[in-house]
Amino acid sequence: MRIIVDAMGGDNAPGEIVRGALAAHGKNGIEIVLVGREKDVRSAGAAYGGIPAGVRVVNATEVIEICDDPATAFKHKKDSSITVGLNMLKAGEGDAFVSAGSTGALLSAATLLVKRVRGIRRAALAPVIPTAGGQAVLIDCGANAECTVEYLVQFAYLGSFYAKRVLHLDKPRVGLLNIGAEPSKGDTLRQETYQALREAGERGELNFIGNIEGKEAMKGGCDVIVSDGFSGNIMLKTIEGAASFLGGEIKKLFLQSAKNKVAGLLVKDSLRQFKEMLNPDRIGGTAFLGISRPVIKAHGSSGAAAIENAVYQAEVVASSGFIADVEAHWSV
Amino acid sequence: MRIIVDAMGGDNAPGEIVRGALAAHGKNGIEIVLVGREKDVRSAGAAYGGIPAGVRVVNATEVIEICDDPATAFKHKKDSSITVGLNMLKAGEGDAFVSAGSTGALLSAATLLVKRVRGIRRAALAPVIPTAGGQAVLIDCGANAECTVEYLVQFAYLGSFYAKRVLHLDKPRVGLLNIGAEPSKGDTLRQETYQALREAGERGELNFIGNIEGKEAMKGGCDVIVSDGFSGNIMLKTIEGAASFLGGEIKKLFLQSAKNKVAGLLVKDSLRQFKEMLNPDRIGGTAFLGISRPVIKAHGSSGAAAIENAVYQAEVVASSGFIADVEAHWSV
Repeated sequence: MRIIVDAMGGDNAPGEIVRGALAAHGKNGIEIVLVGREKDVRSAGAAYGGIPAGVRVVNATEVIEICDDPATAFKHKKDSSITVGLNMLKAGEGDAFVSAGSTGALLSAATLLVKRVRGIRRAALAPVIPTAGGQAVLIDCGANAECTVEYLVQFAYLGSFYAKRVLHLDKPRVGLLNIGAEPSKGDTLRQETYQALREAGERGELNFIGNIEGKEAMKGGCDVIVSDGFSGNIMLKTIEGAASFLGGEIKKLFLQSAKNKVAGLLVKDSLRQFKEMLNPDRIGGTAFLGISRPVIKAHGSSGAAAIENAVYQAEVVASSGFIADVEAHWSV
Repeated sequence: MRIIVDAMGGDNAPGEIVRGALAAHGKNGIEIVLVGREKDVRSAGAAYGGIPAGVRVVNATEVIEICDDPATAFKHKKDSSITVGLNMLKAGEGDAFVSAGSTGALLSAATLLVKRVRGIRRAALAPVIPTAGGQAVLIDCGANAECTVEYLVQFAYLGSFYAKRVLHLDKPRVGLLNIGAEPSKGDTLRQETYQALREAGERGELNFIGNIEGKEAMKGGCDVIVSDGFSGNIMLKTIEGAASFLGGEIKKLFLQSAKNKVAGLLVKDSLRQFKEMLNPDRIGGTAFLGISRPVIKAHGSSGAAAIENAVYQAEVVASSGFIADVEAHWSV
């Protein structure tokens, strides 16, 4: 399994990216290809014992910056790490592509260079979020601010295939993120999507459990949360913010008094596990579902550990059979 | 200050409602009027030492149920506690109305019986949510699933006046809930609203700080979070779900081992405070902003403590000068 890594994307590129990618090299049969300014990549690698002989470095002289227009950057910067890496993915020179670069630029480039699976209208971002039930796929959460019924229905299928193949769930429970449980709730988009998903459920193609509210979703009420990219992003960022806020309050609590400080020492290890559960680096990346080859977006602030995990996730997605399921469904 | 309380609304009516309202009677100069089936109200009151002489009970023979059509229930059930109570509010027989009944029915009834302030297009639900910065007004969070630029701009003013008068903030920082910080982020609705709010900021009418993401909002990045009712509701319910999920994990953590149990005993009081901070009953209710008289919606699951707090909140809103500010702004 060969994973192509954008060495120039993200706040901590190239140092942390190269470090994380090298850590994954050789594990689970993973072979790494680093794409970026060769001189910078090699000097970053030198800080961590040098680039091993088995790791290929592909030179790409340009870097897509956050200020570049996401929709067109990959065209204007034909020698950027994203453009070069995705062209390699398309040409079959790797099995998946990992980047911590601009989400918008990566999405446009993946859509226009690697292309969507035939029949898929829009690719979607689908992070796996922690819930009281374990985890759930949240699709879409930012790629498509404005959606149609068809997009949402496709997201439901994409999320369901992903949950089956990547999270190994037999009949993933698909819920439509809404502001009430009844079919009549929400805006026209939700009401019409509800009917379409209900029909897909009746045909046995989806395990549609109906509308789901944010609260029930966090409690683990379903395995796939279907949303337009706007509300999904609000949900994702609210979870991040709430976890950070509550984590901070818990931290303050253990500093409130001498007694509390003692308690803090007693539960130190458990607190670390608790923090780890909420650590966005644990999974590392978010797959772009609907693209014809695996493209994994890592957090812009990714450090080495997050990149390493994103590489493992890329390997899991690439070997899961997920894309074959999507192709088979839409080829009918 | 006379507060009219819907004794029949909510999951725990009339028992807990009557109990909570009676607990607030006489405090801060509050006088309670209970509206509902007189026999049921009096027998509920009997369980708590009887209805005091100063508390008026107004008979209303009908009850709006959750299965009634929210848009028309108040018309078909003219003798329901919501219809009777709101007509009393309109007639000046009380200074505010508190109900734990159906949000939709209460909103329709308040809009059509008590009316909006002249010039206001839509009333909005505006709960005060806890953030790392203290608190923030989230407007709208469920009354209007589909919004226009004009609605959102009005929500910004309503929320700002509310934060000034009720939360006592001098220049409330108004943020537009969005999926990125730049003015170009989000859908057309957000892009156009951004421009309108920027202009209101330049005129010195609002302290508009720009777009705000869910994460930054939870960190306390602004005092008024402006949203359509759909995304706002997703945000609110996600906070509730995340708090419940994380609270549950913390609870589990303190049961993991004997050592952790000891730690749990040490921080018992602090944990209670932590839980209290997240307790939705602490504030008790959510004001409907834009209605010409104070209408407070309490949680459907409200117990006596939540109702008591909702009554205090009604008193605060009614004496705050908030509605006068709104009237003055839109009379220009």
